[in-house]
Amino acid sequence: MLTLTEQLAERFAQRIRTRLLPAGARLPSVRECARQQGVSPYTVVAAYDKLLAQGLVEARRQRGFYVRDIAQKTPPAQEGQASAAIPLGAKTASPLGTIGVRMSGSQINATALMRGMFYQASAKPQPGAGVLPVGWLEEARFLPAAVRKITASPALQGGSLSYGEPMGDAGLRAALARRMAGISIAAQPDQIMTTVGATHALDIVSRTLLKAGDPVMVEEPGWSVEFARLDALGMRVLPVPRGPEGPDLAVMARYCELHAPKLFVSVSVLHNPTGYSLPPASAHQVLQLAERHGFYVVEDDTYGHIAPEYAVRLAALDGLRRTIYVNGFAKILAPNWRVGYLAAPPGLVERMLDTKLLSTLTTPSILEKALALCIDQGQLRRHAERIRQRLAQARARSVQLALEAGCSFAAEPAGMFGWVETGVDTDMLAQRMLDEGYLIAPGALFHATRQPCTLMRINFANTQEPAFWRTWKNVVKTG
Amino acid sequence: MLTLTEQLAERFAQRIRTRLLPAGARLPSVRECARQQGVSPYTVVAAYDKLLAQGLVEARRQRGFYVRDIAQKTPPAQEGQASAAIPLGAKTASPLGTIGVRMSGSQINATALMRGMFYQASAKPQPGAGVLPVGWLEEARFLPAAVRKITASPALQGGSLSYGEPMGDAGLRAALARRMAGISIAAQPDQIMTTVGATHALDIVSRTLLKAGDPVMVEEPGWSVEFARLDALGMRVLPVPRGPEGPDLAVMARYCELHAPKLFVSVSVLHNPTGYSLPPASAHQVLQLAERHGFYVVEDDTYGHIAPEYAVRLAALDGLRRTIYVNGFAKILAPNWRVGYLAAPPGLVERMLDTKLLSTLTTPSILEKALALCIDQGQLRRHAERIRQRLAQARARSVQLALEAGCSFAAEPAGMFGWVETGVDTDMLAQRMLDEGYLIAPGALFHATRQPCTLMRINFANTQEPAFWRTWKNVVKTG
Repeated sequence: MLTLTEQLAERFAQRIRTRLLPAGARLPSVRECARQQGVSPYTVVAAYDKLLAQGLVEARRQRGFYVRDIAQKTPPAQEGQASAAIPLGAKTASPLGTIGVRMSGSQINATALMRGMFYQASAKPQPGAGVLPVGWLEEARFLPAAVRKITASPALQGGSLSYGEPMGDAGLRAALARRMAGISIAAQPDQIMTTVGATHALDIVSRTLLKAGDPVMVEEPGWSVEFARLDALGMRVLPVPRGPEGPDLAVMARYCELHAPKLFVSVSVLHNPTGYSLPPASAHQVLQLAERHGFYVVEDDTYGHIAPEYAVRLAALDGLRRTIYVNGFAKILAPNWRVGYLAAPPGLVERMLDTKLLSTLTTPSILEKALALCIDQGQLRRHAERIRQRLAQARARSVQLALEAGCSFAAEPAGMFGWVETGVDTDMLAQRMLDEGYLIAPGALFHATRQPCTLMRINFANTQEPAFWRTWKNVVKTG
Repeated sequence: MLTLTEQLAERFAQRIRTRLLPAGARLPSVRECARQQGVSPYTVVAAYDKLLAQGLVEARRQRGFYVRDIAQKTPPAQEGQASAAIPLGAKTASPLGTIGVRMSGSQINATALMRGMFYQASAKPQPGAGVLPVGWLEEARFLPAAVRKITASPALQGGSLSYGEPMGDAGLRAALARRMAGISIAAQPDQIMTTVGATHALDIVSRTLLKAGDPVMVEEPGWSVEFARLDALGMRVLPVPRGPEGPDLAVMARYCELHAPKLFVSVSVLHNPTGYSLPPASAHQVLQLAERHGFYVVEDDTYGHIAPEYAVRLAALDGLRRTIYVNGFAKILAPNWRVGYLAAPPGLVERMLDTKLLSTLTTPSILEKALALCIDQGQLRRHAERIRQRLAQARARSVQLALEAGCSFAAEPAGMFGWVETGVDTDMLAQRMLDEGYLIAPGALFHATRQPCTLMRINFANTQEPAFWRTWKNVVKTG
């Protein structure tokens, strides 16, 4: 049996090791912690002493205990690199003034986000999760069945015994071309290249089109893992506010004049975390800007599978001339399959392929062939339809409960995620919610620079039970 | 029916499109080509005219026809980057004198190598192939059987429905730790991270430890895809001559003094293309140098599966302190599976993981679990033993035939590849051999800068039939 002190110390230690408590975070004061945990101040002091002895935290005179940087924070490879973010303060009048601030905030956010993706806080449905519940995805039994079919056929698995097709399985690329035609994107199979999930596709695009120091526009709030990848590659990240009417075009225009960015990365449909979809007029204007200033647009359509069919894609308007379309299946099938793809303008395909060959050579054809089978037989389409319906019901229930819990929605609820205005600092609350077995996704995680934020992203599939919201209200009340 | 002219033009056009005839290569003279192909000079002139009209070649006055650069040669992302190679002329007295030459040669070589990997010249066994014949790998029927087993078990495939373990399947990592212990490398499972093939592992190591402009030592001759990856990442490539006694330590020492390289990448055992394995004394000295000058060593053990068991690894001597060990299964199982791994010093593991998360997030666990099953049940070990025996027999036959064909061996034959001294320019001969349906691997492909070279790499499994050597002798004779 662990003592109370040991239990408390271990709880903090685990969060520090998994980086859910990021380097630099302040532990609650002894008094505060004692109250929250219902233990005596002596127990807290003893637990903090243990953490000090383990080198996990440091005491700063008069200011309390702070999490130490346990990993080598800045890899030597990154030192002195010219990478910088241009912070756009939420309400700053002139957001374009300062350059040169190192984007450590985004690195912390991305690391916390990524580690959170893999952290099992408890068996409860996790409001901060970025994927659908396992129970929902299990319905797609056709997927393992398709793999068995492929591996049972010597003809079908033959491709495994050589390196395989560099561009990816031809059958899957043909199926994807038909799928894209369904959302009005005209792509030939030879413009489509498979990747190790959408993440790899985004990585390939950045590595092909950019060199260290190049300025890139991203959406804020946005997916901070994307910010961190660009940062790790040495790019300068230019955050563009994303609102219901799309990215702030005035900010984009000024970036274009001042920095001549090479790329704009956009989750156009069911944007993460807001759920906004780009209105057609805004899409048109983004493309006009791209044309005028000569930058490429990366359209990350990760949430497209659960979007209404009439949602307009940039790549559809543009005909894949300045747009690179990226998608995967993590949000609708098996997240661990890591099958993704990109569709690029004909002139860029060969260069993207070279980058793929240098990064992973080829991709596993067994999984690609199995996926092609599921698409061709209509199983994916029917599954996606069921998921959309189920999500709509979950969303209705979650929204109701969130409103009852005193929250409001910063964006009109749509798709998988809700962007919730809580009125309290969600970063502070995240640690308290972890004590209760809930991992939440505080709004700060979706910004390039960490700052107090009262928003949080919820996964509608995981917040439709009253239990979470009861705990939430209780934690908000007791602080 | 195509006319003779059309046939000839199409043959050249295809090679140019697949980059087997790289940009800048000179087409044979009209007279030469007419003689080689047994057609009239008029046919050749008409064919070359067609290629000119298609924009695939350009005529240079008084000098003949040259292949044009059809892809955008240098991606804008690379322009102006400080990347440079330090060419080590084969017989240059002071190889360390010049810096600043752009490594375009290696890019051409790597592109040609990579495209060659996927080019089906004919149904004949291909002497230039880098992998074992499909017929040999088909013997491993346990592999698809293992996948079927995994997908039939809901418990085993459960991991697919979340993102999965960031470091890779725990069962596979435990199996790999035991495998490594068998070659005296002490690695804990939590030092082992799975990747999308060895290529991805090498990519992750470079991205984690290096930043653009950093000098890196590589072996020459060597795997030019590695040179090209480093070049694409903006590194400065320092080629170290690799001989029977290992890398040239004097050259390495001088590089260390002049350039303070951050990394040395070595295929220590059954080096590609020579087949050399690092003698223990040389391994020890390499590690001493690494210690003294503070660089890391990447040990690419891709050919370890077919090596004798007593071969010494750098990582075994070093205890994974300055060494990062990289391996995969493309040379022994299914090349297209893309399951690889790296084992790193404890202090580097977290940083490697961050790079993996940013590049592909996770890796497909179905394939990893299936592989773990095959390792645990001893199937991989028995299969590797059979392959080694079969390869030994093929090697004996190939060596005999090569010697009879007037070739000699620049390195003592071992493993999968022979490094053959032919006495003729193999780059020139490669195009003629393609006419006969044989893809060969000219020695120039394995050097950082393209230069005339009389060596070629042969795959022993594919050169044990007299038919190839008869063709070879005939082509050498008739030019």
